[in-house]
Amino acid sequence: MKLHILGCYAATPRTLTNPTSQVLEIGNHMFLIDCGEGTQVQLRKLKLKFSRINHIFISHLHGDHFFGLPGLVSTFRLLGREKELHIYGPKGIKDAITLLLKLGDSWTNYHIHFHELTSAGPEVIFEDDKVSVETVPLTHRVYTNGFLFKEKLGERKLSVEAVAKYKVDKAYFQNIKNGRDVTMDDGTVLPNALLSFDPPKPKSYAYCSDTAYKPDIVGQIDHATALYHESTFLESEADLAVKTKHSTAKQAAAIAKSAHVERLILGHYSTRYKSIGLFRQEASEVFPDVELADDGKFFEF
Amino acid sequence: MKLHILGCYAATPRTLTNPTSQVLEIGNHMFLIDCGEGTQVQLRKLKLKFSRINHIFISHLHGDHFFGLPGLVSTFRLLGREKELHIYGPKGIKDAITLLLKLGDSWTNYHIHFHELTSAGPEVIFEDDKVSVETVPLTHRVYTNGFLFKEKLGERKLSVEAVAKYKVDKAYFQNIKNGRDVTMDDGTVLPNALLSFDPPKPKSYAYCSDTAYKPDIVGQIDHATALYHESTFLESEADLAVKTKHSTAKQAAAIAKSAHVERLILGHYSTRYKSIGLFRQEASEVFPDVELADDGKFFEF
Repeated sequence: MKLHILGCYAATPRTLTNPTSQVLEIGNHMFLIDCGEGTQVQLRKLKLKFSRINHIFISHLHGDHFFGLPGLVSTFRLLGREKELHIYGPKGIKDAITLLLKLGDSWTNYHIHFHELTSAGPEVIFEDDKVSVETVPLTHRVYTNGFLFKEKLGERKLSVEAVAKYKVDKAYFQNIKNGRDVTMDDGTVLPNALLSFDPPKPKSYAYCSDTAYKPDIVGQIDHATALYHESTFLESEADLAVKTKHSTAKQAAAIAKSAHVERLILGHYSTRYKSIGLFRQEASEVFPDVELADDGKFFEF
Repeated sequence: MKLHILGCYAATPRTLTNPTSQVLEIGNHMFLIDCGEGTQVQLRKLKLKFSRINHIFISHLHGDHFFGLPGLVSTFRLLGREKELHIYGPKGIKDAITLLLKLGDSWTNYHIHFHELTSAGPEVIFEDDKVSVETVPLTHRVYTNGFLFKEKLGERKLSVEAVAKYKVDKAYFQNIKNGRDVTMDDGTVLPNALLSFDPPKPKSYAYCSDTAYKPDIVGQIDHATALYHESTFLESEADLAVKTKHSTAKQAAAIAKSAHVERLILGHYSTRYKSIGLFRQEASEVFPDVELADDGKFFEF
């Protein structure tokens, strides 16, 4: 799993900081998560291929998370896109994009599937044979979802040594990978555990932004490989976090700790702070493995 | 008059080129003309004060001319703006901005006056004691207006020498500036032309983008101090210009020539061309005083 941070600052785009957007490479997919103004320029800067994006997940309809979407949708058209595009986001997103395209008489020559979200509880919104994506309902000033991206448990790994030793015909290999035992010609049953190893543990990535401190998400994101959690404020602005329904770095760390995640990545920093180092410092008091997102940064899990 | 080019390239924002937006300083105003995605970042880069923008003119509702507007409107709010904002643009612009604000439950704490344009002919859409702005109806794929910004004729300049020579009391000075003659105590009439000079010739700036070649605008923009005219294509793509209702550099020059403007500034270049030098070359065959807009460039008239 690879995570490219296109932008991770709150509120307005500035000369050196971009509003929220990230690209998650998982399975064969390149998922775009949120799309603040300037996302398409960040995609170009990081040399990420527009044509590989087929699914876009929008957490909520504040400008710093989706004002880059109309432009990206238009650019896809100009680039001659024909493949369909899936957009997942709060109810209303279809009307917004459709109205903007209509006003410019700029209909796309590819089909856009809008998957409008309204559920108050978690729901699976994408699934194929390798990956699933489910919403993580959050608490913010408007209807907001985080997203949990999960790899599925893969096939078992064939023990090359064991199948050679027991002279198992290769016709059985797929069955073994699927977890089945093998019955030999003489009636001997070779148990699957003898012939294969456990598949790698599936990885998962939880994206939680924007949200007030919301401890009831920890069950859903339990043991995630990585958690991106917004930390708009430091403790000194904890009252402002409550008022604006955002989180502090310490609160993000408390979620990471309760959810037993492997790594915590902080982001969505208010631009009021001169440096982002203090976010790690405050979060580290609660949870050990804290990393700081920054525009253009790349993480691999 | 000062013109700051924030962006002058067609279609999509790229790493080094921005879609259309410019700031015109005229009178005490800082008018924003068009607002492609990334305009607010360009304003910051060029250190132009957000708070001085009170009037925004949008030519048409294609994304490369207005997808930066929702973000700018939101940023004004975050910056604590209280002054009202005037937005002039095609009918539909109010619905678009209002819907986006509504979806984010992000109402502005300042008032936005939308001046929706529908007229097929030119109309004065702004006027104060120093400046007027009128629409220049253009021909494009959607309803589009250029804008003609005109200084008003100022007061006549007092001839300090003449008023001293004829011992004119300073109580008459304002009358003289207003063009009146002066009747002295002995009944002598001093004609105004003796006591004052013509005011400086009012300057004007015509912004014409996007548009197909449209010779019938030349009467309205006759003798403009400067004309910014789109030149999306070179002659080699003249057929494409017709098809997409854009202009070539040569056609922009033909308009400049017929309208007897003092200077022609080209812009809205298609990003298909490696260098923009050829635009000047082709236009110069028709009109002598051709300049090339470029992002971050500054013109003074």
